[in-house]
Amino acid sequence: MADEPIRVTVWGEGRHERRDANVAAMYPDGMHTTIAAGISEHAGSAVEVRCVTLDDEGQGLPDEVLAATDVLTWWGHLAHDEVSDDLVDRVQAAVLAGMGLVVLHSGHWSKIFKRLMGTSCALRWRNGDDRELVWTVDPNHPVAEGVPSPLVIERQEMYGEFFDIPAPDELVFVSSFSGGEVFRSGCAWRRGRGRVFYFSPGDQDYPVYHHPGVRRVVANAAVWAAPSGAPRAETPIAYAPTGWYA
Amino acid sequence: MADEPIRVTVWGEGRHERRDANVAAMYPDGMHTTIAAGISEHAGSAVEVRCVTLDDEGQGLPDEVLAATDVLTWWGHLAHDEVSDDLVDRVQAAVLAGMGLVVLHSGHWSKIFKRLMGTSCALRWRNGDDRELVWTVDPNHPVAEGVPSPLVIERQEMYGEFFDIPAPDELVFVSSFSGGEVFRSGCAWRRGRGRVFYFSPGDQDYPVYHHPGVRRVVANAAVWAAPSGAPRAETPIAYAPTGWYA
Amino acid sequence: MADEPIRVTVWGEGRHERRDANVAAMYPDGMHTTIAAGISEHAGSAVEVRCVTLDDEGQGLPDEVLAATDVLTWWGHLAHDEVSDDLVDRVQAAVLAGMGLVVLHSGHWSKIFKRLMGTSCALRWRNGDDRELVWTVDPNHPVAEGVPSPLVIERQEMYGEFFDIPAPDELVFVSSFSGGEVFRSGCAWRRGRGRVFYFSPGDQDYPVYHHPGVRRVVANAAVWAAPSGAPRAETPIAYAPTGWYA
Amino acid sequence: MADEPIRVTVWGEGRHERRDANVAAMYPDGMHTTIAAGISEHAGSAVEVRCVTLDDEGQGLPDEVLAATDVLTWWGHLAHDEVSDDLVDRVQAAVLAGMGLVVLHSGHWSKIFKRLMGTSCALRWRNGDDRELVWTVDPNHPVAEGVPSPLVIERQEMYGEFFDIPAPDELVFVSSFSGGEVFRSGCAWRRGRGRVFYFSPGDQDYPVYHHPGVRRVVANAAVWAAPSGAPRAETPIAYAPTGWYA
Repeated sequence: MADEPIRVTVWGEGRHERRDANVAAMYPDGMHTTIAAGISEHAGSAVEVRCVTLDDEGQGLPDEVLAATDVLTWWGHLAHDEVSDDLVDRVQAAVLAGMGLVVLHSGHWSKIFKRLMGTSCALRWRNGDDRELVWTVDPNHPVAEGVPSPLVIERQEMYGEFFDIPAPDELVFVSSFSGGEVFRSGCAWRRGRGRVFYFSPGDQDYPVYHHPGVRRVVANAAVWAAPSGAPRAETPIAYAPTGWYA
Repeated sequence: MADEPIRVTVWGEGRHERRDANVAAMYPDGMHTTIAAGISEHAGSAVEVRCVTLDDEGQGLPDEVLAATDVLTWWGHLAHDEVSDDLVDRVQAAVLAGMGLVVLHSGHWSKIFKRLMGTSCALRWRNGDDRELVWTVDPNHPVAEGVPSPLVIERQEMYGEFFDIPAPDELVFVSSFSGGEVFRSGCAWRRGRGRVFYFSPGDQDYPVYHHPGVRRVVANAAVWAAPSGAPRAETPIAYAPTGWYA
Repeated sequence: MADEPIRVTVWGEGRHERRDANVAAMYPDGMHTTIAAGISEHAGSAVEVRCVTLDDEGQGLPDEVLAATDVLTWWGHLAHDEVSDDLVDRVQAAVLAGMGLVVLHSGHWSKIFKRLMGTSCALRWRNGDDRELVWTVDPNHPVAEGVPSPLVIERQEMYGEFFDIPAPDELVFVSSFSGGEVFRSGCAWRRGRGRVFYFSPGDQDYPVYHHPGVRRVVANAAVWAAPSGAPRAETPIAYAPTGWYA
Repeated sequence: MADEPIRVTVWGEGRHERRDANVAAMYPDGMHTTIAAGISEHAGSAVEVRCVTLDDEGQGLPDEVLAATDVLTWWGHLAHDEVSDDLVDRVQAAVLAGMGLVVLHSGHWSKIFKRLMGTSCALRWRNGDDRELVWTVDPNHPVAEGVPSPLVIERQEMYGEFFDIPAPDELVFVSSFSGGEVFRSGCAWRRGRGRVFYFSPGDQDYPVYHHPGVRRVVANAAVWAAPSGAPRAETPIAYAPTGWYA
């Protein structure tokens, strides 16, 4: 209902693109710019998107950037350990205060996702050119809007169960793979005043973020994760003594 | 914690076995007796199992049988419409008062399952000799105990999403099929004081209830669905005026 | 994201107002008009609200009205049994196809709510001039937006646990009463493609629908329950055979 | 179904009892021994209970103790910060591998609970001699077995919403207080292969762990949280590459 655009910050690790020729070929300006373009393409003027990366100042998220972010998307893989604990603390605090967080693919193994889930976030995987079919199991969910079921991704890394996450508050997508594995590939949780969405398609070795259906899901998730109504609370949730009511 | 055995009643429609030679060949004494044998095989002295069928007196569940049932399993297909509304009312009341209910395969389309779910319980299906892989997504759940992941069923009817059910309180199994479809194949709900489990493998055209893993799941589900502790409440949950407390 | 206003139909039983002088005094044009005014007041041009009642043609919801309804609100008490089973069938089908439903107070005992829940929907109650405090337990939920916690209702009927409903998909409000009872007073479920919200404050003997906070909740719920994005599906969810994928 | 007793370890902070005369008077042998006695009293030979405290070797939970624990109960308040991060890591790993954890009262603010929840676990409180009424909202839950609803605690610290936790997988108890506040006082979650239960009654300034109903709940929770069937997995959930299935 807000008229102000949702301020989306796309955080990219930005390392594969510089190290691996095949990744650079698919994502010449970085995976993050492709992710950002997909969000803008679908969400239009409802969002205002910027990109930051691990190697930017403050690991891309100094206080003033985080404070001006309504929804953060997170893709990382090689360098999870380089993300400072201080940044993890600050992102967690932002989510609990209302910022949305959209975690993508190998981001399942990031410090911030593990912090918010409380579990190992482990899974089984295989880099074997599987075809992934992403099926909608909650057709009423805003993140599934306009997404075909199944969404077909011709080549993709396999992520399989058991995926060690808390049972999602809302399970939106379940994938199958050529090898017969299944995976809860689109999951939503609420944490504090914030919303978290995990969407698994998106390996760096495949052009997944150019896929129209994937772009649609990521854009939907960014819009869905935005804090409803009021601007983000400035103050954390209180652990505080309280007087008698009334 | 109870010492008394759980009184399990296996309700079978019992029609395919008399109509279809292939079913009769696989299940010479009826599908229900095979289902019952699987439960006894795994749950042993923890259960006391009997079989009833649609064509028995009172459609198999006259008052005295229902009253002496802690957990009811339900398989039907051809004759859902023949089940009387009065029986559906009584089974629903028994579940709300604490009786467990394990609904199997095509039982998803039974009157009693639709009654308890409140949704259409529709799904997509194909009789095409798919291989079904049943994956555990909640390894801590009692119904998954001792069940390999995946459980492999070489030939089986495909049931695919969207499966129009309320989001399960506990999602235990997710299946994939040769055709690439996925299905929430093991789902738990609580309704009133009772527990409901749905397990999808089990078409009459395949020898699924002879499969050791499937038998294990059905037995686990029967034990899990039993009312905890005290005997089943005799009285329904009250819609009642109440005085001031204390 | 839709530009079209949400078409809200407020269904009122409309009997207390004609029978009971105290109700007529508080709600001279019927409880439904007060409920409708509260929705319009808060949701403004995002909604288009009309009122219908049980004694209107087709019990207020002939096919053409239901088909033109995105969100239906339901208040009934004296005459639940008069609502035809055919209407209950059609409202259920509409919800499963995507229509939102907001059930108010004594509507917990309506045929349509019991149909969608699958449980008895019984509760404990006392007409004893309790003060009700409605506390928000999901501050991030759109239905809680702008609602003080607690919302104080000085005089109200007590509704207490155990409330025999399926565990809500989202629990938004929990109330306490002067007598010390608690109640899950704001609950959300998804059923098929539709959303259902139950909000308990609202007895006919108290001027609850004039309360600014209550009006805000009902308006929020009506907006939240609207189908996301696309217009309501014309076709029900299929129970249908399907070919091999791709 | 296991014949072996559940090995319960009651972890106590053990400081209030040495610092505060009123606590020492109520709990001359420490709060932990009273908690342990309550578990034994109700669960009998189904459990084998031992007590450890923060000031024991290895903060009470050296590797060999943790490895021999099926269910751990946790009460802490003054010294949350003294618990080493290494111990928190090890307890988290044990829970994810299947150990049950029952967190009591001010343990909501412990490092281990915050770690497993991923949220702040903040709440509102008042030390004002409230009467707490604990209502059962899931009468079918094993932890509610034999517990009156409401369970009346004549004098207790108030804990009130908003309680910043992930939505419980199972909400079992909701409390009200003299001041009109409400609190989700009995909550269950699954994390990895383990189960977590939080039960809020239990302040050091009141004799709450002598209360028969509270003792019953804590004993039920300890039994419920035990890993089902097989002994605890020795190996953590794998984050591992996998070959093609079959």
